[in-house]
Amino acid sequence: MGGDRGVEAVIGGINHSLSRNNRLKFLIHGNQSQLYKKIKYFPKISSASSIIPCDSVVAMDEKPSTALRSGKNSSMWSSLNSLARGNAHIALSCGNTGALMAMSMMQLRKAPGVNRPAIAILWPSTNQRGFNIVLDAGADVKADSDDLLQYALMGAAYAKTGFSIKIPRIGLLNVGTDIHKGRNELHAASLLIADAQKTSESFEFVGYVEGGDLPSSKVDVIVTDGFTGNVALKTGEGTASLIKHFLKESFNKSLMSKLGSILSLSSLKELNKKIDPRNVNGGIFLGLNGVVIKSHGGADEIGVAAAINLAFQLEDTGFSQKLMTQFAKN
Amino acid sequence: MGGDRGVEAVIGGINHSLSRNNRLKFLIHGNQSQLYKKIKYFPKISSASSIIPCDSVVAMDEKPSTALRSGKNSSMWSSLNSLARGNAHIALSCGNTGALMAMSMMQLRKAPGVNRPAIAILWPSTNQRGFNIVLDAGADVKADSDDLLQYALMGAAYAKTGFSIKIPRIGLLNVGTDIHKGRNELHAASLLIADAQKTSESFEFVGYVEGGDLPSSKVDVIVTDGFTGNVALKTGEGTASLIKHFLKESFNKSLMSKLGSILSLSSLKELNKKIDPRNVNGGIFLGLNGVVIKSHGGADEIGVAAAINLAFQLEDTGFSQKLMTQFAKN
Repeated sequence: MGGDRGVEAVIGGINHSLSRNNRLKFLIHGNQSQLYKKIKYFPKISSASSIIPCDSVVAMDEKPSTALRSGKNSSMWSSLNSLARGNAHIALSCGNTGALMAMSMMQLRKAPGVNRPAIAILWPSTNQRGFNIVLDAGADVKADSDDLLQYALMGAAYAKTGFSIKIPRIGLLNVGTDIHKGRNELHAASLLIADAQKTSESFEFVGYVEGGDLPSSKVDVIVTDGFTGNVALKTGEGTASLIKHFLKESFNKSLMSKLGSILSLSSLKELNKKIDPRNVNGGIFLGLNGVVIKSHGGADEIGVAAAINLAFQLEDTGFSQKLMTQFAKN
Repeated sequence: MGGDRGVEAVIGGINHSLSRNNRLKFLIHGNQSQLYKKIKYFPKISSASSIIPCDSVVAMDEKPSTALRSGKNSSMWSSLNSLARGNAHIALSCGNTGALMAMSMMQLRKAPGVNRPAIAILWPSTNQRGFNIVLDAGADVKADSDDLLQYALMGAAYAKTGFSIKIPRIGLLNVGTDIHKGRNELHAASLLIADAQKTSESFEFVGYVEGGDLPSSKVDVIVTDGFTGNVALKTGEGTASLIKHFLKESFNKSLMSKLGSILSLSSLKELNKKIDPRNVNGGIFLGLNGVVIKSHGGADEIGVAAAINLAFQLEDTGFSQKLMTQFAKN
């Protein structure tokens, strides 16, 4: 029910996913009549899903504490409940991130040994895989050095189990790569992570990285606090939109360049796909007893389908179980 | 002498600037023989500049405290000294940012009423002007609510005096636009800035903005701490490079798209110019008794020329004097 585009995008995304993957099943939580009105036109959805009726919706701008107090009949709470009770393998929402994290923590509880859960996102990059893992992208606006160490371990585990990266390279986001740069908690965290590498040998700590390294191939996982991560994420998206806007403007300036853009259409489409944030949509909540995926609030059906696809991939490889084992090892 | 490309880029930039503007004069601080070797091929430079010989260079990775202790014979110190003694109107460096700020504070002293100087940069945007002002881009990794208020006032003054924006619109960078989002110091700062607006009426506070708003036309000045600002800056640059990389790759994929790119060449060049960080190169140190401009360390001669051009524009409009008056008013 949540997200900026509401039911439309979610149902469209489900339909899109089902047309490519018939192993998916859905429990759709929300206003029954509203959902039914949309679903009835899609026979594929009807046969692969059940509607779980819910009275209310958590608003996109609702304070997490308010949502926790008064949102027990909401579609968000209900979807997390079906995960907590074992009726679903993964919960997915386009809704209010803060509320989703608060409700997830209440219903799923933190995994053993985890202090602060984090949101890990996929960041388009130049490496072969096409993306890097960045966390925390906004679960918490603060992180001390111990939290940053834990993000490094969780990120490494996610990279190993979710994407089969054998020895993930971990970088700590800072304003420079020199040892004396940045805030105190980063100095402390870099020592902790370097220490952890020595004992576990399951990842490689490459030290400090900068904003320009987020899309680089010199690192697989970038660790930062949720405030910085969220600003970086939105800055990256904003920059990509700006360039697309300028590119469009440029191509429309003369007949010659219009013709040029037509000849280059397939290349431009491919470019668009590579930088389209919808194709790497889906932030995963790490550090809980259960897998919750947060789709971008503004995601359309393509974006929702990408998040569903990520959920399927993870579950199909036994991600939750493997992740728990990895955490325990570190 | 500093910067990643050393003397070459600086001398090239000076030459580039002089070929477009014959009102410029330069005091070039550095190793005499090295500078002379380059300059002798450029008669324009020889007649418009003097070399101020200096024994040492502040290294790019030198700790600011070390530079302060042992850098009194450096080109950086010497250039700031010529500004402090009134021999130059503006000091410009491609060197070590931290050292430049530390030396600037020591030689120029903070302007009356300023607690923490900041670096203000120009950020490519969709508005008519083509850029927004963002501060702090990395002078200090920390900022409390009072500092953020001061950045807002300094940013407003810079927008008014430097670029004739009558009522600059100020936004405070956060992870969401809702009132309850973000860190405590941001809540406090938003109240302080809203209060300041009431009494001065010389700017408009638009409230919280997000990373995606940095290139937007809904704001003129974006205020943030130096850690977040620096990460955002480098993330934006990294994203732009990534897209350029993908664009090039796409165009080279087929003969058809290669032909297309040739037809679109002038449009693509224009695009490149718009998103080229070299064209908005030049961070200004605000809050000191004197104008210091920090060029990007990796700037080539085009980038250096852009920073020189910014310096000239500012000085030509009596910026320093006007800025002091504006500060005093706020």
